[in-house]
Amino acid sequence: MTSAAGIGYASAMKPKSFSDMRCSIARTLELVGSWWALLIIRDAMMGARRFKHFEKSLGISKNTLTSRLNDLIDAGILDRVAGSDGSAFDEYVLTEQGRELAPVMIALSQWGDKWVPHAKGSSTEIIDVRSGKPLSQIWPRALDGEKLPLRQISMRRADDAPPLKWD
Amino acid sequence: MTSAAGIGYASAMKPKSFSDMRCSIARTLELVGSWWALLIIRDAMMGARRFKHFEKSLGISKNTLTSRLNDLIDAGILDRVAGSDGSAFDEYVLTEQGRELAPVMIALSQWGDKWVPHAKGSSTEIIDVRSGKPLSQIWPRALDGEKLPLRQISMRRADDAPPLKWD
Repeated sequence: MTSAAGIGYASAMKPKSFSDMRCSIARTLELVGSWWALLIIRDAMMGARRFKHFEKSLGISKNTLTSRLNDLIDAGILDRVAGSDGSAFDEYVLTEQGRELAPVMIALSQWGDKWVPHAKGSSTEIIDVRSGKPLSQIWPRALDGEKLPLRQISMRRADDAPPLKWD
Repeated sequence: MTSAAGIGYASAMKPKSFSDMRCSIARTLELVGSWWALLIIRDAMMGARRFKHFEKSLGISKNTLTSRLNDLIDAGILDRVAGSDGSAFDEYVLTEQGRELAPVMIALSQWGDKWVPHAKGSSTEIIDVRSGKPLSQIWPRALDGEKLPLRQISMRRADDAPPLKWD
């Protein structure tokens, strides 16, 4: 039922093109917008709050950073709030929608640790604060919580979606 | 121990800039390279194998697509193999490294389903082929498999990594 690539269509399901944008992956990428956006989200998850924090971390121009931060606010991923220390500087904090990108970030991070490791090891480890231990590898699971081998995952086309036909 | 954003540094850990690229997220993004690359990987996971399949799905120029496919081969994510039907057309298949991006793609897809749903619902559902049921939400878990609330996740700096100081 699966392709040689390990993830494929179960045979009852048919292909198509994704221009209708009912594909949630494409829609997410369009909303998140750019690599810079993901690095801003990463920094916010790691405690960056002020414009200068992001600027220092990313080394991009003020204009570009301003534009990216505004895009993320428009997308509902960041909020601009008054400075937590009573200062005149606004801060940028993740919304719930933004925080819920954590599984994406963790999956990217764990994949990088495994497939493109740095000679010195990773600079940062994601941990369970209660135990101080690392997380388990983030992985697809069945509804009962069982980890699934990738060959056992497939994609089913919605009944009212145009069929996918590669050939 | 966590920031208002729900994911933060445990207090013993210190900040820095990511220019050393020991950050696995940045390194992964650099390797994967572009949104187009992720959409090519998506299509490969959904059964696309030939140049014309990707071309039809993505609607990009032959030159751009050729360049992206070559980048993904260089990155170890795709392999170019002889046509499975004995035809003269090469096919592009995911390597193990490429298949293991499935958690990233599933996390992107589930986030999109939740936060930017399409009016008609999602065109595609990711399923466990054995049961025909959807997967559970991909989510950070402790080593014992327990789902973790995001506020209970933090990032720890490696001992030999330059400290992160936002201020």
